[in-house]
Amino acid sequence: MNTITTIIKDPNRIIYQNNIPKSHLSDGLQLKYGQAELLVYPVTTAEVSQIVQYAYSKGINITTRGAGTNLVGSTIPNGGIIIDLSLMNTIVELDKETFTITVQPGILLQDLQQWVEKQDLFYPPDPGAKNATIGGNISTNAGGMRAVKYGVTRDYVQAIEVVMADGSVLNFGSKNVKDNTGLSLKHLFIGSEGTLGIITQCTLKLIAKPKAFETLIIGFKSIDLAIANITTILQTLTPTALEFVERQVAQWGERYSGFQFPLPNAQAYLIVMLDGADHQTILQQRQQLLANLTDCEHFIAETVEQASQIWAVRGSLVRAVEAVTEQDPIDIVVPINKIADFIHYTKQLEAKTGVRMLAFGHAGDGNIHLCLLRDGREQAQWQRLLEQVHCALYLKCHQLGGLPSAEHGIGTAKVNYFKQAIPEDNRQLMQAIKQQFDRKNILNNQVYILQI
Amino acid sequence: MNTITTIIKDPNRIIYQNNIPKSHLSDGLQLKYGQAELLVYPVTTAEVSQIVQYAYSKGINITTRGAGTNLVGSTIPNGGIIIDLSLMNTIVELDKETFTITVQPGILLQDLQQWVEKQDLFYPPDPGAKNATIGGNISTNAGGMRAVKYGVTRDYVQAIEVVMADGSVLNFGSKNVKDNTGLSLKHLFIGSEGTLGIITQCTLKLIAKPKAFETLIIGFKSIDLAIANITTILQTLTPTALEFVERQVAQWGERYSGFQFPLPNAQAYLIVMLDGADHQTILQQRQQLLANLTDCEHFIAETVEQASQIWAVRGSLVRAVEAVTEQDPIDIVVPINKIADFIHYTKQLEAKTGVRMLAFGHAGDGNIHLCLLRDGREQAQWQRLLEQVHCALYLKCHQLGGLPSAEHGIGTAKVNYFKQAIPEDNRQLMQAIKQQFDRKNILNNQVYILQI
Repeated sequence: MNTITTIIKDPNRIIYQNNIPKSHLSDGLQLKYGQAELLVYPVTTAEVSQIVQYAYSKGINITTRGAGTNLVGSTIPNGGIIIDLSLMNTIVELDKETFTITVQPGILLQDLQQWVEKQDLFYPPDPGAKNATIGGNISTNAGGMRAVKYGVTRDYVQAIEVVMADGSVLNFGSKNVKDNTGLSLKHLFIGSEGTLGIITQCTLKLIAKPKAFETLIIGFKSIDLAIANITTILQTLTPTALEFVERQVAQWGERYSGFQFPLPNAQAYLIVMLDGADHQTILQQRQQLLANLTDCEHFIAETVEQASQIWAVRGSLVRAVEAVTEQDPIDIVVPINKIADFIHYTKQLEAKTGVRMLAFGHAGDGNIHLCLLRDGREQAQWQRLLEQVHCALYLKCHQLGGLPSAEHGIGTAKVNYFKQAIPEDNRQLMQAIKQQFDRKNILNNQVYILQI
Repeated sequence: MNTITTIIKDPNRIIYQNNIPKSHLSDGLQLKYGQAELLVYPVTTAEVSQIVQYAYSKGINITTRGAGTNLVGSTIPNGGIIIDLSLMNTIVELDKETFTITVQPGILLQDLQQWVEKQDLFYPPDPGAKNATIGGNISTNAGGMRAVKYGVTRDYVQAIEVVMADGSVLNFGSKNVKDNTGLSLKHLFIGSEGTLGIITQCTLKLIAKPKAFETLIIGFKSIDLAIANITTILQTLTPTALEFVERQVAQWGERYSGFQFPLPNAQAYLIVMLDGADHQTILQQRQQLLANLTDCEHFIAETVEQASQIWAVRGSLVRAVEAVTEQDPIDIVVPINKIADFIHYTKQLEAKTGVRMLAFGHAGDGNIHLCLLRDGREQAQWQRLLEQVHCALYLKCHQLGGLPSAEHGIGTAKVNYFKQAIPEDNRQLMQAIKQQFDRKNILNNQVYILQI
């Protein structure tokens, strides 16, 4: 691959086989590893284009990665070249007149959010991994907590610049708010997990920053009561976020974060975030909300600290688990009226298999995250159990009309459950599209799309 | 086509060549006509599937239509079979727990809106043609006035059932709020103008019905002042609708509707609709809005009648024009900070060509509708002038970063301007997708996608 050195002239941005950090041969879980001949760090679209053009001419596989927070194996390389876009992380343009920001794909979500909020603007999507890149967010149509009110990443992508499999550079979308000018190739790219091209620039929609926020925590005597109130809340108003946590799950976060949830006698919680133009708007929403709730107690965070502590407990759940044991993360989504059914099923399955399962997640949109705890089991036993639990969970999810991925993607990890969820005719159309966009099948060919 | 009578047994639902109403050989403008051998009115997905399967086997062209309100030639048939879906207009299911409604595609927008509002629910998309079908709305990703706050049709399509070109029946999307399970074929279908398949059922997202609405009209001394305040408004809050109308354009609506706009001395207006959970929310929004506006006078509709009259003037503009002269409708979109540039250009072009142009539209999202008035010109002269004006308008739109269709689609009418707006590589990808979805190219093959 001598040609690469003529494309990327800075030797610090080319790393050869044996020197590639182990973390770059894996995903965010660091449990499985692939192999690659070369890791490159391009800094311009032109460099990406030339690398891809070269790889295409030789039929070399390419795996694209941002911050490597992926949880489903999409960044585990299948030989060939790893393109790491993390150095392409600059803000290209803030256009206050059209409420858009144009950035390179390697910018971290947290950096983007902080930067725009300093301008009194707001980028609503808020996936859990704040250290993920925007390019990765677009490739998985990342969602997060604020999706209840504001929608997911898809809803904020105005335009993308993409390097196609043959190295050509195309643009999809624009700064126009409405667009019915031809098939929406932009929407096809969003969530395509790097299989159709490499996003090298993106223009995102911003909104005015809400001036006031409030966090409430509502305690219930049972998970059933908590879940029964989700629909009531959504019929009353659209909260910014609506999360559910069971008491026993909250304890993990409490121990890890050092903060306590209020209402310690509750068995299950709904955490509600409200936002608005001013305190008065918040007050009204709060009154509407509380007027319609039944069989519960509530606590209103009166200070920023109190709110931060509640979110710190919620936000630390995964890390709390990982500090104790290896865990397998699940990202299923069910229609919002099936949340209780699914949660109950996880409890049955826990009793049956002995695998501890911590369920929590985005109650407002039916996106349930589970941590399946390894708890010191030997590798072979854990793999067998995991397969058994996965089969059962994804089947139940399917039977409830759910899907195996809300926001993590399919990657390599969920191929079987993808096949279960998506009929063969649909899968063939996806493959036909992949074939048209990447005739030599070099881009992220390790992930699901060619194995279905 | 004897086989058709074995599929559709009711002879009233099959109309042969000479008996096909002339209106069914055209679009909403009724200016150009195509031809067809057969017009059928299926009532089930199975009938649609069998008709398409038959047509596919014989290589017979199919043109699909709903209410026939299309303005860009998409319903002008190219021989073969016209499938009219207007009898497939039932409500299949209201699912209050998931905030979704499942309907057949032939239901009219106005019927759907009224029905769900009686249930205290709300279908936010509100395109101008209330007598269009939901299937047509999805096929053109229709927008309308409330897109400023609520988005376009795309944002409310949860799932579609589609008859593919070979007659197979596929489903895309689900009742799940989040979805990152494979390429989004659903989003590819939305706005595809009937080229990829025939939508036979759709599940739409609903929201709780806002309890309070208010209409304000704001008068300015010039169109420049009006447009300068659009950004100010959008930075302050997100109105439900934000429309602009010039005084001289408003007069057309006033004469036709018999109602008067308030503030008769203004030269240009912004009409603002606000909505919220209660009157208090509205009041707050109104105060925020008015506090930030400059160089204007305003009128608040105190009664439902006053609000209705304002919207009646706005809503009657196209009919007011059409009562006087034939008109050519334009549906361009520009980034919101380019609205003034585009409006000024239309005035120059009007002065240069003598073709009267009435501009109005959705200020909040940059979607400008123009009526180009024929004013008694002879056909040949009108066609020459129209081509000249189109060339100039779409070029200007393109130079401003705009697009030739915000919500009407490309159809047959805008092929040249589509080519100008969308690079060849992108067009080839669209054709490649069409080819994969419809290998014999029988579905709506009169429209742009194969002529690019």
